[in-house]
Amino acid sequence: VTPRPAILVNGVPAKHVAADDRGLHYGDGLFETIAVIAGEPRRWMRHMARLESGCARLGIPTPDTGAFLDDARTLCAGRDRAVLKLIVTRGRGGRGYRPPSAPQPTRIAVCSNWPEWPARIADEGARVRYCRMRLGRNPVLAGIKHLSRLEYVLARAEWGNEYDEGLLRDDAGNVVEGTVSNVFAVSRGALYTPDLSQCGVAGIMREAVMEQAQRLGLAVHTRPMTRDDIAQADELLLTNSLHEVWPVTQLEKQHYGVGPLTRRLMESLRHE
Amino acid sequence: VTPRPAILVNGVPAKHVAADDRGLHYGDGLFETIAVIAGEPRRWMRHMARLESGCARLGIPTPDTGAFLDDARTLCAGRDRAVLKLIVTRGRGGRGYRPPSAPQPTRIAVCSNWPEWPARIADEGARVRYCRMRLGRNPVLAGIKHLSRLEYVLARAEWGNEYDEGLLRDDAGNVVEGTVSNVFAVSRGALYTPDLSQCGVAGIMREAVMEQAQRLGLAVHTRPMTRDDIAQADELLLTNSLHEVWPVTQLEKQHYGVGPLTRRLMESLRHE
Repeated sequence: VTPRPAILVNGVPAKHVAADDRGLHYGDGLFETIAVIAGEPRRWMRHMARLESGCARLGIPTPDTGAFLDDARTLCAGRDRAVLKLIVTRGRGGRGYRPPSAPQPTRIAVCSNWPEWPARIADEGARVRYCRMRLGRNPVLAGIKHLSRLEYVLARAEWGNEYDEGLLRDDAGNVVEGTVSNVFAVSRGALYTPDLSQCGVAGIMREAVMEQAQRLGLAVHTRPMTRDDIAQADELLLTNSLHEVWPVTQLEKQHYGVGPLTRRLMESLRHE
Repeated sequence: VTPRPAILVNGVPAKHVAADDRGLHYGDGLFETIAVIAGEPRRWMRHMARLESGCARLGIPTPDTGAFLDDARTLCAGRDRAVLKLIVTRGRGGRGYRPPSAPQPTRIAVCSNWPEWPARIADEGARVRYCRMRLGRNPVLAGIKHLSRLEYVLARAEWGNEYDEGLLRDDAGNVVEGTVSNVFAVSRGALYTPDLSQCGVAGIMREAVMEQAQRLGLAVHTRPMTRDDIAQADELLLTNSLHEVWPVTQLEKQHYGVGPLTRRLMESLRHE
C-alpha cells in the first residue's frame, strides 16, 4: 500500500490552506525540496540557509526553522526514503499586490513518496533535450526558489517520458539550468556551470558539488554559457537535491560518456 | 458593518483550497479582477474571452464560464459596488512541474469590498512614480493575467500611499504598464500605448479604451515606448477594470494637465 502524502500547515495536520493565501494569489513565497533518508532530511542546514536568504530578498519574515525541523521530523519519522517539500508564503491577504505591513507567513510541509526514476539513468546516464521555453531575466528574482514558476511548468509540459530532463536557456540564448536541476560541463579537467545572476535557481546540490570539487582540487568556473560551450564539453552532469548527480549521456543527438571526473564527484559525494 | 469577503471554490462556499493545488505550488493558473456594479459584473464577455484565451495559451482546460457566471451572481447579488476576483488554476497535484495529463481545474470566486481610492485622484488626477523593479521578458507569458506575479508584488512593495501607481519598465528599459494598470500617452491628438508582446498584462480596460478611441476617430498606436516618449506626452492616463480611466497629473517631478482627449475618453466610456 502506497502511503498517502502527509501535510502540516503551520504545524497542524491539514489538507487545505486559506483561500486568500498570497502563495496562491501571487506566487508570493518560496519552497525547498529535500531528500529524506532514514527519517532524516538531507543537507538541512543548506536548505534552511537558502530559505532564509530567499525570505530576506523577498522581504518575508524569516521562518522559524526550528518549527520546520519539528514538521520535518513529524512527517518523516520512520520513512526510509521520502521527499519533503517545504513552502513559506507571505501569508494571507493584503489589498492586491501590496504586501501586508505585518505579514504572518504560512508554513507548509508536505512529505511524499520517493520518486522512482528509471534504473537506466543510474546505469547509463540521463537523456536530455533543450526546451523551447526561454527564461525571462530578472536579477531581483534570480537564484531564488520562489513560487512564481509558470515558466518551468510550461517547459516541463514540452515532453513526456522520452527524456529525463530539459535544459533551459534565457531570452538571450545562454544555457541556464535544467527544469529541476543545475548543469555542469567538464572541459579539460575543470568544471563550468552557468552564471545565475539573471535567472535560474541556485540549487543546494549545485553548491555542494562546487564545494566538493574544490575539496578535490578541481577548478570551478561560474560564467555565462552558450549551447556551443555545452556541445564542446568532455562530460556533462546534472545536479538535484533528490537524485544528487546524474551523468548526461545524451543531449539531443549528441552523446557523452560517463567521464572520470563525473565518476569521481559521484563517488566522493556518496561519502560526504 | 463591513461585509466579509465571500468565497466559492468550485461553486461551493469555502474558506480553503487544497494544499496540493498547483496555483499555490507553481503560480500555475490565471485570474480576472472584475468590477461589480448594481449586482452585475462589468464587461463580463471581455473578461471571459481573456480568461479563455489565457487558458488556451497555458494548456489549461477551458473553464465553464457559465458556472463562473453563476458564482458571480451568487456572490454579488444585491451588492451596489464590489470587486469580483476569479481564479482558475490547473488544479491539484501531478509530479512536480509536469502538468497532470488530465488536469481538473480549480475555480475560485471571491467577492470583496470596493476599494476606496482618495477622492483627490478623481478630482486632480493620479500621482505616479517609476518602479525600480524591471520586468523580465517572456513572450510565452506576455499579456496573460497569470498567477506567477512575484515581480508585481515586489514592485508594489517599493512605495506606500505617497503615490497612486508605479510604472514598470522591462529589462531593456522600455515602459510597459503600471503595477495594476495599463498606460496610454496622448501625443498630437493620437493615443500611444506600450507593446505587450514581451511582458505585461493586456488589460480589459486597455482593450475597451482602444476600441472606444477608434469609435471616436482617434488613432491608437501600439509600440515599444521609452521613458522619453512618456515624458514628451501631452496627456497621460492609466486604465484598470475597477477605476476605468485615471488621468495622470504627476509622474515623478513632471506635471501633466487633465487634457481634452482624456476627458473625452472618460466621458464617452461613462456612457458605454
